[in-house]
Amino acid sequence: MLTDRAKQILSWYASDNVGVKTNLVRLINHGSLAGTGKFVILPVDQGFEHGPARSFAPNPGGYDPDYHAQLAVDSGCNAYAAPLGALEASADKFAGQVPLILKLNNSDSLAKMDNVCSAVTASVKDAVRLGCVAIGYTIYPGSGARNVMYEELRDLIREAKESGLPTIVWAYPRGNLSKDGETAIDVVAYAAQISCQLGAHVVKVKPPKDFIEQPEAKKVFEKYAIPTKTLADRVRHVVQSAFNGKRIVIFSGGEAKGTDELLEEVRQLAAGGAFGSIMGRNAFQRPRPEATKLLSDVMEIFRKA
Amino acid sequence: MLTDRAKQILSWYASDNVGVKTNLVRLINHGSLAGTGKFVILPVDQGFEHGPARSFAPNPGGYDPDYHAQLAVDSGCNAYAAPLGALEASADKFAGQVPLILKLNNSDSLAKMDNVCSAVTASVKDAVRLGCVAIGYTIYPGSGARNVMYEELRDLIREAKESGLPTIVWAYPRGNLSKDGETAIDVVAYAAQISCQLGAHVVKVKPPKDFIEQPEAKKVFEKYAIPTKTLADRVRHVVQSAFNGKRIVIFSGGEAKGTDELLEEVRQLAAGGAFGSIMGRNAFQRPRPEATKLLSDVMEIFRKA
Amino acid sequence: MLTDRAKQILSWYASDNVGVKTNLVRLINHGSLAGTGKFVILPVDQGFEHGPARSFAPNPGGYDPDYHAQLAVDSGCNAYAAPLGALEASADKFAGQVPLILKLNNSDSLAKMDNVCSAVTASVKDAVRLGCVAIGYTIYPGSGARNVMYEELRDLIREAKESGLPTIVWAYPRGNLSKDGETAIDVVAYAAQISCQLGAHVVKVKPPKDFIEQPEAKKVFEKYAIPTKTLADRVRHVVQSAFNGKRIVIFSGGEAKGTDELLEEVRQLAAGGAFGSIMGRNAFQRPRPEATKLLSDVMEIFRKA
Amino acid sequence: MLTDRAKQILSWYASDNVGVKTNLVRLINHGSLAGTGKFVILPVDQGFEHGPARSFAPNPGGYDPDYHAQLAVDSGCNAYAAPLGALEASADKFAGQVPLILKLNNSDSLAKMDNVCSAVTASVKDAVRLGCVAIGYTIYPGSGARNVMYEELRDLIREAKESGLPTIVWAYPRGNLSKDGETAIDVVAYAAQISCQLGAHVVKVKPPKDFIEQPEAKKVFEKYAIPTKTLADRVRHVVQSAFNGKRIVIFSGGEAKGTDELLEEVRQLAAGGAFGSIMGRNAFQRPRPEATKLLSDVMEIFRKA
Amino acid sequence: MLTDRAKQILSWYASDNVGVKTNLVRLINHGSLAGTGKFVILPVDQGFEHGPARSFAPNPGGYDPDYHAQLAVDSGCNAYAAPLGALEASADKFAGQVPLILKLNNSDSLAKMDNVCSAVTASVKDAVRLGCVAIGYTIYPGSGARNVMYEELRDLIREAKESGLPTIVWAYPRGNLSKDGETAIDVVAYAAQISCQLGAHVVKVKPPKDFIEQPEAKKVFEKYAIPTKTLADRVRHVVQSAFNGKRIVIFSGGEAKGTDELLEEVRQLAAGGAFGSIMGRNAFQRPRPEATKLLSDVMEIFRKA
Repeated sequence: MLTDRAKQILSWYASDNVGVKTNLVRLINHGSLAGTGKFVILPVDQGFEHGPARSFAPNPGGYDPDYHAQLAVDSGCNAYAAPLGALEASADKFAGQVPLILKLNNSDSLAKMDNVCSAVTASVKDAVRLGCVAIGYTIYPGSGARNVMYEELRDLIREAKESGLPTIVWAYPRGNLSKDGETAIDVVAYAAQISCQLGAHVVKVKPPKDFIEQPEAKKVFEKYAIPTKTLADRVRHVVQSAFNGKRIVIFSGGEAKGTDELLEEVRQLAAGGAFGSIMGRNAFQRPRPEATKLLSDVMEIFRKA
Repeated sequence: MLTDRAKQILSWYASDNVGVKTNLVRLINHGSLAGTGKFVILPVDQGFEHGPARSFAPNPGGYDPDYHAQLAVDSGCNAYAAPLGALEASADKFAGQVPLILKLNNSDSLAKMDNVCSAVTASVKDAVRLGCVAIGYTIYPGSGARNVMYEELRDLIREAKESGLPTIVWAYPRGNLSKDGETAIDVVAYAAQISCQLGAHVVKVKPPKDFIEQPEAKKVFEKYAIPTKTLADRVRHVVQSAFNGKRIVIFSGGEAKGTDELLEEVRQLAAGGAFGSIMGRNAFQRPRPEATKLLSDVMEIFRKA
Repeated sequence: MLTDRAKQILSWYASDNVGVKTNLVRLINHGSLAGTGKFVILPVDQGFEHGPARSFAPNPGGYDPDYHAQLAVDSGCNAYAAPLGALEASADKFAGQVPLILKLNNSDSLAKMDNVCSAVTASVKDAVRLGCVAIGYTIYPGSGARNVMYEELRDLIREAKESGLPTIVWAYPRGNLSKDGETAIDVVAYAAQISCQLGAHVVKVKPPKDFIEQPEAKKVFEKYAIPTKTLADRVRHVVQSAFNGKRIVIFSGGEAKGTDELLEEVRQLAAGGAFGSIMGRNAFQRPRPEATKLLSDVMEIFRKA
Repeated sequence: MLTDRAKQILSWYASDNVGVKTNLVRLINHGSLAGTGKFVILPVDQGFEHGPARSFAPNPGGYDPDYHAQLAVDSGCNAYAAPLGALEASADKFAGQVPLILKLNNSDSLAKMDNVCSAVTASVKDAVRLGCVAIGYTIYPGSGARNVMYEELRDLIREAKESGLPTIVWAYPRGNLSKDGETAIDVVAYAAQISCQLGAHVVKVKPPKDFIEQPEAKKVFEKYAIPTKTLADRVRHVVQSAFNGKRIVIFSGGEAKGTDELLEEVRQLAAGGAFGSIMGRNAFQRPRPEATKLLSDVMEIFRKA
Repeated sequence: MLTDRAKQILSWYASDNVGVKTNLVRLINHGSLAGTGKFVILPVDQGFEHGPARSFAPNPGGYDPDYHAQLAVDSGCNAYAAPLGALEASADKFAGQVPLILKLNNSDSLAKMDNVCSAVTASVKDAVRLGCVAIGYTIYPGSGARNVMYEELRDLIREAKESGLPTIVWAYPRGNLSKDGETAIDVVAYAAQISCQLGAHVVKVKPPKDFIEQPEAKKVFEKYAIPTKTLADRVRHVVQSAFNGKRIVIFSGGEAKGTDELLEEVRQLAAGGAFGSIMGRNAFQRPRPEATKLLSDVMEIFRKA
């Protein structure tokens, strides 16, 4: 049975087919936050993105993909997201125990590209074959390879829809931007808007900073006094920029950090109207009991929001 | 029943199939200007093109895509045009209430491209699925990526025809041109001609300025004394350049401006034989009652032209 | 019934299917020169290639595509060639009255490309749908984008054959050549040879000048004393270079010029064994009665050749 | 019948179809090491990669592809891997006598590429047609052409799976790396992780050196005191980085070297948990009896590990 | 009936289907050298590659494609090879009189490419339609566009096999090489090896010179004392590098030269184990009786070898 909040969320996706809605419900209705319309997701793509030792040496159990799938199951996450290889390794063993999200494109830290652009390392057919409930795709707004990514995503979203799968877009501004600009409030909000316009069902961004990158945007933020002081303020603007809150927007935590700092950040996210957190290194690099406790605390914050 | 003017317009598209003609009639016969052969269309792609705050902070209701669809319905526009995500969000709710145009390609302001070229972010199949009456596509004549755009458009026009959908081409000269040259009368007229030759059913250009970019064109404008002093003169040349007025040409208003200035511009457009206006920021960034009044005044000008 | 000359011409295309031969016969057997094996064709792509005012201001009736189709009908041309948009506009009205040739690729004068290459703006399917008897395609031998063009043309020729349509190749050397070299006798003859090797049924080149571009060719022209003094001499070499005259080669007139000069040029073409003329600006930029008279005079020259 | 070790290995590939598992069993159960879960494979692509004289002059029998197939059969290797041409030459004669692996992409030493990237010179369909049990593909992590390779591999893995064939990835870091960095322990382990995430069933890397390329990795290796002194230590880290040992990882020997040095290296590989060796030049450039003896000694080391 | 030599040659292509073998037999069993396992082929692509006057002015009959087909028939060549256009012109007239080889890719001398690469100007389907017994394709090992060529060739070989057609590879090293290096013995042998590994049924190279381009190869040639003094020595190494003589390797003559010099070169080719000659300009630029005599003498040399 659906909660009223779940029904409300689904109403924003009215043009989607029943298959897509069914898998959105699977995401909404799984784990500790089932039915609340809030989400905590475990993503583990760092082995690919940063290398194995940097990702798993702090807690070596994580070299084994099964570790993460089990952690997602035990801690009551809404879903577990990973690249093809990791899901190939664990999907059969954990079939039906936790919603899986196949991250379709990935980047490593070895190559230096003229224009940043991840490689598409898996397909929608793989997601279907492995029993996933959604696909994930990373865009880098600001990259000179923007068209490549937006157009790949267009095709993947369409194919995913035809397979009844919703799409989660990781939106990381990068390229023709200053380092601070990558998490500037105007840029993160813009990235959320782009993701929604591209047809994302769920948008994943980084917590924005109190900085404005684009001169044209700066004038508007000042003229209309858009609040950006607190993280909650900024999250509110990002959620508003995601079709006035009619698209699910979740936030990552970024680099591993102290538990207090982390929980305070999550409280701000929740206060600003975030739909949830996607928490990787901060979870799996901690010893398992600590990770489970942390995830539980994060869920509690969102539940009460 | 069709007016004589509607029949005349349709006669110019005699080589098209009945499906395409049917959707042209839907565009012609909807809203306050139904049957007049004049058009006022609401386009909302600025969230994608310029960012959310720059587009919607002046009138925050616009963060929600439904706002625009409702505005188009209530003000009696011939159609509402938007990117995929916005139509996904609103199409089910507004099904059948206003003709929808899916803008198939879009650009953001974050990346810096070697050759300007929008990303194709949606498909003809999406347009069909969402109940649209036409597709929209932006070309940048003058860009080094010209061939990419003209060839994408060729394929999309063909696929759209096979689905019974006409194509509206947004023609914005850009690239190997001076800043003034982008709206020079010779260049805008040339962009209209190119759009028609590419097979556009409707062409959308910016109001041309009294400036000539190309030396070769300058000689001809002078030798044959083509009038370019008033906006009406220039619009007349653009319409003539669109198969001697046998293709629908509509004009955008560009940046938000004062109401008097705007209405005077529209009067010149109408006097020059424009088929209508496509009005975005000038409409949705105004408070709603003002927007409705403005659109109504614009329609009145075209009705009387 | 076929004339002997028509039969002879057809015999050179013995490996083609009956559909292609049928459309070759339609080209041969239409208009004032029907059955003579000579051709005068009206091409109107200048609106796309040079812009509307530069093309049509001298004789404003030409802004309307119907003007050209009617001119081709009334003056007894073998065919009328134009880009997609113009044929879309006129094909239904003039159905069956004059053989149509769809120019599949086109270039405008606004962009500056690294390697010159036209955009493919229409398809073989469009040609079939619009009742055309042939497709046209422009190659720029000498361009660094040569492979793109030759390979597109390969696919289009094959698809056209499968639809029973012959292919007319516009061969304009350009790119890695001096300005004079673009019409040098060695280069034009080479372009004709390349077109034939690529599978063109009809080749269209510019009248060659008495200049040799390539040092290696210069040696050979001198050693074997190939005559290049008169235009008739040079045309003879070009026709010989087109499979010893076993492919139809026609010549364009280039920029608008005086009537006497033009007719003298045509006499030289005819004397050199040209199969005909393709005459655009020199026809449609003249007042209509003058244009009809000129085309009639040109046809007379070829008839008597 | 399957040994317990074979069953354990197969359990790691539980998400694969029966066809893929069947061919994995063929690899596991062939030759002197049948059933042990250890592998010695003969790869002969050096004629393509380095040229014929450099590869075969030391032992001219090897100019003939049949020589290698016979060597693999006689010495009890698990499989013989080669490019298309060599397998075309020998596959019929040796049908069913030794498992064949078709190396799908290859590079030569003549060209200089902007971004290193092998050419895909054969297809999955070729592998099926020639009776192969697996495909092989080389990636160069670190190359600016990374996306091309990862995406080609994605498509090939999927097509191979559909044909019941597992995929062996040759992972050679190259490009944006120092010369030492190409075999640095952090880089080789990272390459193994990437290969696994891309979906490789078997990973082939070079023996890593006691050197760390990436500053970010260096911090982690030091902080967590990851042992890298002995080759066995380093192999252990690479195997751990391959899904904690749940993917088959084999090691090449590189340039031809003395027998004692070579066997010592193999002992270290075995001690570190390597699944086997892929040995080309060190085998086929030796006189045949020496080669057979060497391969036998290597197999003995792995059998006892 | 097959000669023993023909049977032996066929045994090297055992993995090919009957269709491919049938056409190999047609090549082997046609003309004056039928059944000997030796080949003399007439290739005429110089009109495309060098221009018409440079190719045909010395003997103007050659402007007509039929001239060459007739020459191949009358002189008893094993086959006649030409680009699409020339075969289109002659195939019907000469159907069944001489085996035809369609050269699928071609280059002209007008353009200057960043990376040398021929254009694919015809298809396997064309070869089938025109009754050919094989396709031809040119690779430029050493070019930065190597991957484009090797991958095109992969697809063409596969498609040709499916149509029962063998593939002849013209291997011309070019690009990242010194001028001498293009015909260096190590480079020509390497090009032959690459062609074989790519799946060529017949390899065509230039006669190698006594020069070694690659330092790594030089060491090996010296260490193992590979003879390179006489052309026969070098041909022997090239043939060995073509799977130890298990692929058909034929040699071109290059630029036109004196008859004595030419026949001496052919004697060396034959002495070194070449399978034959492919002789263009040296044949068709001579007056017809001389050409026939020359070809006959060449055949006699190979017959006796």
